[in-house]
Amino acid sequence: MQVFKHINDMQAWSQAQKKQGLTIGLVPTMGYLHAGHLSLVQAAREQCDRVIVSIFVNPTQFGAGEDFADYPRDIERDCELLRQAQTDAVFAPDAREMYAQDFNTWVEVKGEITAKLCGASRPNHFKGVTTVVSKLFNICLPDRAFFGQKDVQQAMIIEKMVRELNFPLSIVRVPIMREASGLAMSSRNVYLSSEQKEQALVLSQSLQKAAQLIAAGERNPAHIKGVIRDMIAQSPEAVIDYAEIYDAHGLSDVEVVQGSVLIALAVKFGTTRLIDNLIVEV
Amino acid sequence: MQVFKHINDMQAWSQAQKKQGLTIGLVPTMGYLHAGHLSLVQAAREQCDRVIVSIFVNPTQFGAGEDFADYPRDIERDCELLRQAQTDAVFAPDAREMYAQDFNTWVEVKGEITAKLCGASRPNHFKGVTTVVSKLFNICLPDRAFFGQKDVQQAMIIEKMVRELNFPLSIVRVPIMREASGLAMSSRNVYLSSEQKEQALVLSQSLQKAAQLIAAGERNPAHIKGVIRDMIAQSPEAVIDYAEIYDAHGLSDVEVVQGSVLIALAVKFGTTRLIDNLIVEV
Repeated sequence: MQVFKHINDMQAWSQAQKKQGLTIGLVPTMGYLHAGHLSLVQAAREQCDRVIVSIFVNPTQFGAGEDFADYPRDIERDCELLRQAQTDAVFAPDAREMYAQDFNTWVEVKGEITAKLCGASRPNHFKGVTTVVSKLFNICLPDRAFFGQKDVQQAMIIEKMVRELNFPLSIVRVPIMREASGLAMSSRNVYLSSEQKEQALVLSQSLQKAAQLIAAGERNPAHIKGVIRDMIAQSPEAVIDYAEIYDAHGLSDVEVVQGSVLIALAVKFGTTRLIDNLIVEV
Repeated sequence: MQVFKHINDMQAWSQAQKKQGLTIGLVPTMGYLHAGHLSLVQAAREQCDRVIVSIFVNPTQFGAGEDFADYPRDIERDCELLRQAQTDAVFAPDAREMYAQDFNTWVEVKGEITAKLCGASRPNHFKGVTTVVSKLFNICLPDRAFFGQKDVQQAMIIEKMVRELNFPLSIVRVPIMREASGLAMSSRNVYLSSEQKEQALVLSQSLQKAAQLIAAGERNPAHIKGVIRDMIAQSPEAVIDYAEIYDAHGLSDVEVVQGSVLIALAVKFGTTRLIDNLIVEV
């Protein structure tokens, strides 16, 4: 497994693979890998000749007061996990390599798809994401790029960006990996106390409850959101950032649950903000 | 020569060329080709195995009240000229092919490089340019893309975008082509009356005068701009949009003419806005 720190080296490697007619799968990550990331790597391994994993805690997608400085990092452990997962190349640049001092080119998806949910809570977050992902696409030249369903809004936005800017690649969404308890895997779970981790189960539980209501015929999103909010309110440390139901294609408002709907949650436990979601087909 | 109207067909053709190990040169144009465009095609022909010319009058780079509807178009004449110039492929999509109804992804270079000169006169112009050029790069997959020095600010902005988003290609700038009179070639010259065309010679003449002043030791940009403005003011129909001197790398202000400086003009004759420029090395 090769580890690249410089853009030119990574890009040259990717170009060399493509000249040989090999397909490339890219798994963009911020490192501190867990089983969720490794499921993305496995999907890439199955679908592509070469697998690149990028590890980059991207400063432009963090807002002031967010956890950029504290975000957990362990590149050596990550590389060991990736070696075991038969990754071909790791791209781990530092921030100066990715962003020159006078950097000022931005890729931005506008409209309700970025304005709602995490876009409302974290202004400029998705602009940082779409910019760095565009850079990673141009550097790593993937035929397929793999994103987790846990960051569902991110996946939707990147799919729209790929379609509208005509990137010559396809996006593959990989299902959420959960711990046995149901808690969605996240690098940020390490921030949780054991008490908070217990309380955080309410995210997946309330999503399951919502799915049961819909399966039983409930079609009123306001009612379903009310049930979710009531459940979450019973966890003493939980503070709801959002609990919403939108159309799963473009995040339009829905007045009646029908078609493909997204139930999306963001809840804070102390300073740790967790997200989870479920797409229900009616 | 193949003519493609659809993104998927063009992209598939480009991918097929690359799989054969051939290099691609792209010349993005808005059509109504003149000798300036053909010099770009010739440069691409000399430097690349395959040459693509795109013809697309891009709506997103025109402001309200600008000449989008009136912009001259003659695709059949263009194709005949391109055939003679040994172009391999023409990409001529319509606006609906390039911009779906809900299109909302933008590539934008921010800062003084886009805020000054044409960026001040034409808000959102360069955002439209960088967005469509990003799309053309992803569709046509060039190794080299060729831009005219006449649109010098556009070339600077695209070079910055390519560098900062890490597009796997290089930008080649091609010198301004001029008529025997000195008038810079432009598709918009057809708008000019013969009287206006005569008066428009003041653009290249004032640039030459500025170069002479600098060669003679003048280093005060305010003085040089004054001479240019006085010369242009003698053309009865000329209305100056801008006449500026900036650093030729990033459009910073210069207090003393030194290094590489850009002298840039935009002047209206009736409803027709012409641009011209000269880079002087001191």
